[in-house]
Amino acid sequence: MIEANNPQLKSWIEVHPKSDFPIQNIPFGVIKTAQNGALPATRIGDYAIDLKLLESEGFFNDILDQMVFQGTNLNTFLGCGKNKWSAVRQRISELFRAENALIPDNESLRKFVLHPITEVEMLLPVQIGDYTDFYSSREHATNVGKMFRDPDNALLPNWLHIPVGYHGRSSSIVVSGTDIHRPKGQLMPADAEQPVFGSSRLMDFELEMAFIVGKGNKLGEPIPVEKAEDHIFGMVIFNDLSARDIQKWEYVPLGPFLGKSFGSVISPWIVTLEALEPFRTESPDQEPEVLPYLKGNKQSTFDLKLSVDLQPENSSATQICQSNFKYLYWSMAQQLAHHTVNGCNMQSGDMCASGTISGPKEHEFGSMLELSWKGTKPLKLADGSERKFINDGDSIIMRAWNEHNGIRIGFGESKTKILKSR
Amino acid sequence: MIEANNPQLKSWIEVHPKSDFPIQNIPFGVIKTAQNGALPATRIGDYAIDLKLLESEGFFNDILDQMVFQGTNLNTFLGCGKNKWSAVRQRISELFRAENALIPDNESLRKFVLHPITEVEMLLPVQIGDYTDFYSSREHATNVGKMFRDPDNALLPNWLHIPVGYHGRSSSIVVSGTDIHRPKGQLMPADAEQPVFGSSRLMDFELEMAFIVGKGNKLGEPIPVEKAEDHIFGMVIFNDLSARDIQKWEYVPLGPFLGKSFGSVISPWIVTLEALEPFRTESPDQEPEVLPYLKGNKQSTFDLKLSVDLQPENSSATQICQSNFKYLYWSMAQQLAHHTVNGCNMQSGDMCASGTISGPKEHEFGSMLELSWKGTKPLKLADGSERKFINDGDSIIMRAWNEHNGIRIGFGESKTKILKSR
Repeated sequence: MIEANNPQLKSWIEVHPKSDFPIQNIPFGVIKTAQNGALPATRIGDYAIDLKLLESEGFFNDILDQMVFQGTNLNTFLGCGKNKWSAVRQRISELFRAENALIPDNESLRKFVLHPITEVEMLLPVQIGDYTDFYSSREHATNVGKMFRDPDNALLPNWLHIPVGYHGRSSSIVVSGTDIHRPKGQLMPADAEQPVFGSSRLMDFELEMAFIVGKGNKLGEPIPVEKAEDHIFGMVIFNDLSARDIQKWEYVPLGPFLGKSFGSVISPWIVTLEALEPFRTESPDQEPEVLPYLKGNKQSTFDLKLSVDLQPENSSATQICQSNFKYLYWSMAQQLAHHTVNGCNMQSGDMCASGTISGPKEHEFGSMLELSWKGTKPLKLADGSERKFINDGDSIIMRAWNEHNGIRIGFGESKTKILKSR
Repeated sequence: MIEANNPQLKSWIEVHPKSDFPIQNIPFGVIKTAQNGALPATRIGDYAIDLKLLESEGFFNDILDQMVFQGTNLNTFLGCGKNKWSAVRQRISELFRAENALIPDNESLRKFVLHPITEVEMLLPVQIGDYTDFYSSREHATNVGKMFRDPDNALLPNWLHIPVGYHGRSSSIVVSGTDIHRPKGQLMPADAEQPVFGSSRLMDFELEMAFIVGKGNKLGEPIPVEKAEDHIFGMVIFNDLSARDIQKWEYVPLGPFLGKSFGSVISPWIVTLEALEPFRTESPDQEPEVLPYLKGNKQSTFDLKLSVDLQPENSSATQICQSNFKYLYWSMAQQLAHHTVNGCNMQSGDMCASGTISGPKEHEFGSMLELSWKGTKPLKLADGSERKFINDGDSIIMRAWNEHNGIRIGFGESKTKILKSR
């Protein structure tokens, strides 16, 4: 067991038992404080911890060869590689565990290093160079195939051989708490002869998780599947907002474009793969057998519970989906090995989302499209209203977490409200 | 007429009449010198001109509110907006015109500011956040439709209504002179039952031009078509290398992915839209009428001659394609207005490529796929050999230029050699 993950550890910072952020999590993010601007941070309980200050005070001097927390994103730290990430996480664990009085006894340090979470603004944790969206849930791909193509041959011929994916837009990825205006664009109404311009009528979310590349690879030098996880720093929740009507009219033959690029919403704290080790589990069986370059460790995924709440304006939230990351047919290691097999270079901070994570049961479907089955089965909400797709004023709240040996590790949330079109 | 474009101007730097870089061009790039590392530069004739030094010496102090040429890319300068770009270009024009002896009379300044082009390495001029590839040549889309779909309905239903495009990979965009290994990946051979892993057998180029975003827009705030050109800093040649067999097996339903992301090759000097003004011309008529948000100025494109040479290893080059930028059905302004109409935010340094620029005649087709008509009409080269697609050791050289009033403005070249698979 990784020592920083030890379930016996307690922090001198009080942590509610249902918090996503016990001392065993130690996620990485970027906060903005009124005094100091943007800076890298970690979190324990309801406190953000200033890593820039800890680094300046020399707490990582024996671990890191360079300063990595003095900028406004985590990219330099991510480029240091797996051993350094682990050593920094271990050092933070040592500094904040109950028996270590070093910071508690240093009043001024304690005061400046801790920020109540309610007093900081969360920013994007990394500068995202490229973002890729996969399509790795068999249940989701099957549902889409049944609705829009042939119910008897729902999966396309390549789907079981390739972790299908496409390049997405990175500039419009925003952090939880950022609200998004309903996009306008070209739509082709049913039975119309000409397209029209207007607001999307079919706004949807997609429940996804994304991994963040730690150390990259050079152009022309693929990452083999057995080494792929060493290049993955951690994960965030990813809400791939989708305007289904814009997407439908534009996406043949070159894929989704403006139906996606108006905004995607991530959770602010990157939870490291190391912190997720207690939840490691087997990926689904793959039949037909995959090509050798995709054959990885069977223990290549994580048992992470996922949920989606829909909250109408001035009303209470209704949980509309429960799913699990482990349902995904293709693992992150397979996605990364495939992505680089042609020589494509990954860079620190690049983001790869999973695609919609649907499970086998109807309440596990990860989008409104599937939950309402193309609008034919409206969802009932707690306030009595119905939804086929997302209305203006609705907030979408996604969560991811699990517990092991009484320790809960979570991602916080990805929350966004859909505002009316400008 | 923009004064810096005046065809009467001559520089005190000698310029060959066939040079792409007279004093009327003043392109922007990033060079690397043995002494000073990477720095922004412009070019006149066969000399690169150190803009970092000129800025340090105060030559732009009255124009710019901040230092913009002290870093290793042009992004900060691009963010300054159109008026600043123009003023800097005008100042450079003044400093290097024949009648201005300021620099020639200052021996040490002259010595340090000028670098023979053979003594510098060209780097990527900008940090590219996002890259988008359009598909804006009607001739190209029609050729592809004829070959792979229905010859009588070659254009897909959305093509005449939307400047179709997709998100591409920015990390693998490299500068001219970078050679690229033939990619490996999954291929589905004709009549096979299972895909195989191997080197691409159908390597192709695509002759494109790309524009570089100068000043961006905020998320949620579209750029109207009539203001779009104000956000475009300039253009480069763009070779969108394509592995047709990898692409064919992977691209349904989410678009091109690994068939493209192994490498794309740009020319190193960004030629400003301002320098291209003498070549401004009308875009093709659009029928059916486009939606109002896409109705722009008819004088929205540029008459730029394009060529592609194929040069086998240790052999002479053969010109295999001549085309023209003005053939494109969708203008850059329309592309940018469409790209942002959903609220998508553009950032300084973002790149948008045109898609393959094919003309109506067979020798104007902008890819091997079209030139050899899917391999059915092999091309004869000067050395007597034949090509259906690109062989290992072949170099692809693209050029773009035109002349007006005896002044030739050009882009230099995009050159890359395809190396055998690793």
